[in-house]
Amino acid sequence: MRKILIVVQYDGTNFHGFQFQPGLRTVQGEFEEAAGRVLGESVRVAGAGRTDAGVHAFGQALTLETSGPIPIENLVKALNNALAADVKVVSVQEVPTSFNARRDAKVKLYSYRILNRQLPSPFINRYAWHVRQPLDEDRMQAAADTLVGEHDFAAFCGSGSSVKTTVRKLTRLDVLRDGEVVEIRAEGNGFLYLMVRIIVGTLVQVGSGRLSVEEVSWILAGCDRRQAGRTAPPQGLSLVRITY
Amino acid sequence: MRKILIVVQYDGTNFHGFQFQPGLRTVQGEFEEAAGRVLGESVRVAGAGRTDAGVHAFGQALTLETSGPIPIENLVKALNNALAADVKVVSVQEVPTSFNARRDAKVKLYSYRILNRQLPSPFINRYAWHVRQPLDEDRMQAAADTLVGEHDFAAFCGSGSSVKTTVRKLTRLDVLRDGEVVEIRAEGNGFLYLMVRIIVGTLVQVGSGRLSVEEVSWILAGCDRRQAGRTAPPQGLSLVRITY
Repeated sequence: MRKILIVVQYDGTNFHGFQFQPGLRTVQGEFEEAAGRVLGESVRVAGAGRTDAGVHAFGQALTLETSGPIPIENLVKALNNALAADVKVVSVQEVPTSFNARRDAKVKLYSYRILNRQLPSPFINRYAWHVRQPLDEDRMQAAADTLVGEHDFAAFCGSGSSVKTTVRKLTRLDVLRDGEVVEIRAEGNGFLYLMVRIIVGTLVQVGSGRLSVEEVSWILAGCDRRQAGRTAPPQGLSLVRITY
Repeated sequence: MRKILIVVQYDGTNFHGFQFQPGLRTVQGEFEEAAGRVLGESVRVAGAGRTDAGVHAFGQALTLETSGPIPIENLVKALNNALAADVKVVSVQEVPTSFNARRDAKVKLYSYRILNRQLPSPFINRYAWHVRQPLDEDRMQAAADTLVGEHDFAAFCGSGSSVKTTVRKLTRLDVLRDGEVVEIRAEGNGFLYLMVRIIVGTLVQVGSGRLSVEEVSWILAGCDRRQAGRTAPPQGLSLVRITY
C-alpha cells in the first residue's frame, strides 16, 4: 500500500464544497471518482480540511492510498486528464503511510479578496466580495492586529460545529490593498468553522466605520458569535497553502 | 427618443455568444430582457460587433433607444441590479440618435491569452488557451509583423460569413509574454469572422516551430483558409475596447 499526498487547485463556484455529499457535486466526490478511474480501484481521499461551497483553493492537500502500480510521475497528467476543468492537480508525492493530511498540517494560509469600488465586475466578483463602501485598510489592519496570537475565537466560530476547544493560534492577519482590491491573508495552525469569513465580515465593519478597533477586542473577549460581524460570502475566500 | 451608448463587460463562459438566439442564453437576449424591466418598455439593443460563444468582453459597446424618463445617472446601477453576475455595465452616455455602434467604431482591440506551461489551471484555463509546447514569442512576433497592415485576410476568415470584402487593416499585432502567459493583442478597424482566433492558431504553430515566419506570409498571400492554422478556442479571447 502506498500513500500519496496530492496538492489540488479548484474553482469552488460550481462545487457544493470539498466534502463528499451524496447526489451533490463536491471536490472530494469528483476527485474520488476520477482517481478511481485512473487507478482502476475504489478510492477514498482524506483532505487537510474542508472548504465550504463556493470557496476556492490554490493549494488544498489530500491523500489517497493505492495498491496500484501506476508510476508517481505519470499521476499528475493522468489525474488532470480525468478531472473536470475546474479542479486540477498541482503536484503529487509519496509519503509514509502514517502521514495524516489533517493532523500533520503545520500552517494553513487563507486569502480573502474584496473588490472595493462602486462598480461590480463579472470577472472579479467570481473571486471576491463586492463591497461598495470605501474601506480604510489601516483601520482594518489595526483591528486585525488585536486578533493575532493565541485566543479563544468562539466569537468568530460559526454555529453547527462541534470542536473540543475554540482556542486557536492566528500567526498572521494582514490587510493589503492593491488598487481596488483589498486582500486579507490569515495564517494559523488551524481554523474554526467559518472563522476566516466571520473575521473578514467584522474587519469590513471596521473598515467602513461601523465598528471601532477597540470594539473588536471586546468582541474577541466576549466569546459571543452574535457580537461579531456578518459572515463574509464564500467566493472571496481561497485556501492558498498548507505547510507540513 | 434618446439613444444611449452602453459599455458592458461579460464573462462569456456561460453565454452562447453575444447575438440573440431564441431559447439560448445570449448577452443580447439577457441584456434586452434586463433593460426592458428597468425601462418598463420593450428594448432592442445594437452591438458594436458579435462575440462568439465563450468569448469574453471587457469593453463591448451597444446602444439602445428609450423614450422613458430614467435619469442617465441612475442607469448604471439600475441595469447592474437587473443583470446577472456575469454581465455588468461599466458606463453609459447619451449619444446623438444618428450614432451607430457598429458603423461608427473606429478601432477595436482584442486580447488573446495563452497559458503556456505543462500544468493546467482551474482559474486561468477559463480565460486562456492551455498550450503545453513551449512557445517562442519572438518568432511569433516576427510572424505577427508580416500580418500588420492592410491585407486581404481571406486565409484568416472562418467559413459561413458573407462579407463584401475580406480586406481589413490590422494596425497592431503584439505578442507579449508575462511569465507563463502569452498575450496576443490585435487592433484594427474591423475583423473578419474568427479572424483573431485563426491568427492566434497560426501564430501558435509558428511559436512551437511547426510553421516558419516565411510560411505565414505565404499563407496570407494565398488567401486560402485551409493553409492557415487551426482556430484557437474561444475562452482565450476578450474584446477589450472599442474606440469611437
